[in-house]
Amino acid sequence: MNSTRDIDALIDMMARLPGLGPRSARRAVLHMIRKRALLLTPLADLMQTVAATARECARCGNIGSTEICDICASGKRANGQVCVVEDVADLWAMERGQAFRGRYHVLGGTLSALDQVGPDALRIPQLVARVTEEEVTEVILALGATVDGQTTAHYIADQLDGQVTLTTLAQGVPIGGELDYLDDGTIGAALAARKSL
Amino acid sequence: MNSTRDIDALIDMMARLPGLGPRSARRAVLHMIRKRALLLTPLADLMQTVAATARECARCGNIGSTEICDICASGKRANGQVCVVEDVADLWAMERGQAFRGRYHVLGGTLSALDQVGPDALRIPQLVARVTEEEVTEVILALGATVDGQTTAHYIADQLDGQVTLTTLAQGVPIGGELDYLDDGTIGAALAARKSL
Ligand SMILES: [Zn+2]
Ligand SMILES: [Zn+2]
Repeated sequence: MNSTRDIDALIDMMARLPGLGPRSARRAVLHMIRKRALLLTPLADLMQTVAATARECARCGNIGSTEICDICASGKRANGQVCVVEDVADLWAMERGQAFRGRYHVLGGTLSALDQVGPDALRIPQLVARVTEEEVTEVILALGATVDGQTTAHYIADQLDGQVTLTTLAQGVPIGGELDYLDDGTIGAALAARKSL
Repeated sequence: MNSTRDIDALIDMMARLPGLGPRSARRAVLHMIRKRALLLTPLADLMQTVAATARECARCGNIGSTEICDICASGKRANGQVCVVEDVADLWAMERGQAFRGRYHVLGGTLSALDQVGPDALRIPQLVARVTEEEVTEVILALGATVDGQTTAHYIADQLDGQVTLTTLAQGVPIGGELDYLDDGTIGAALAARKSL
């Protein structure tokens, strides 16, 4: 089908997005073509804008459209707390939770012997610099409960030892979480950290 | 996060695509921003091209970029067979199968009393016209094995009765399909249509 070359190319490229495969990419493209004015054209425009403007915050690694992101630029967020996350997606999740009012530091991954990811690949030197440059009183390590996440947390804790209060997120049963759906590690951690009523 | 307004808007719009929700839309947008030159910019360009050029074939309802689609325009596909499908996605699936060498007629849905979809909303009059105008010898009804799909097939069969050979796809176990994963109706249909070895 020669005349659908662009449509085929669009499907192939959509299928490369995480969470989409060939079948869902085809469905998405047909849906977009049907909702051309409401969906396809606005999506194309937004993608072009984001491609032209999205950039990493020079300070924390968050994604925004300015050299220093809104969170780093806001004086209200300068409460002395810096929350260290692996990824921008984690920062977004924390912001949705609306519980944290400090600033962030996005590592861009975790230390990994297997994938040969060392501290310099992870914005860890920048974190150490921020702790001395900014008036940081507490560093909250909100890293994944994986081997690499915990290795990274320990490495950072060693680097910052004595300079700042170091904390980590509590582990336990998510609110509304049914025990049945939790992995054993989470249940074990929640049990170990149990509180008296 | 004011400076991420466009990113937020992009995530919201991506989340409206079938198969994606808010979480997968966020992951997809982060992935696209990271692969800006390889993914985000080309996707934006392709979407703009498709938004500007995609159109329904005036004859069969297929989606392409010309008034008459490649399949309708190709003399090689004029073998007297017309395969009637509900949706362009079904036409694409048939083409991937590479088993059918005739032409198509895309209804754009099925008759539905509940959703008040009548024959005129479905390109059924155009199908009847094609059967007399083109040299159609066989109409293959490749409609879904749903109540509405079968109602539609019977309605079309009534309309074309005596003018053309009417056939339908065989029902049965898909090649490589494990019985365990099939719904009972498919197993029942396959059993009823069983063949001697
Ligand atoms: Zn920042
Ligand atoms: Zn056509």
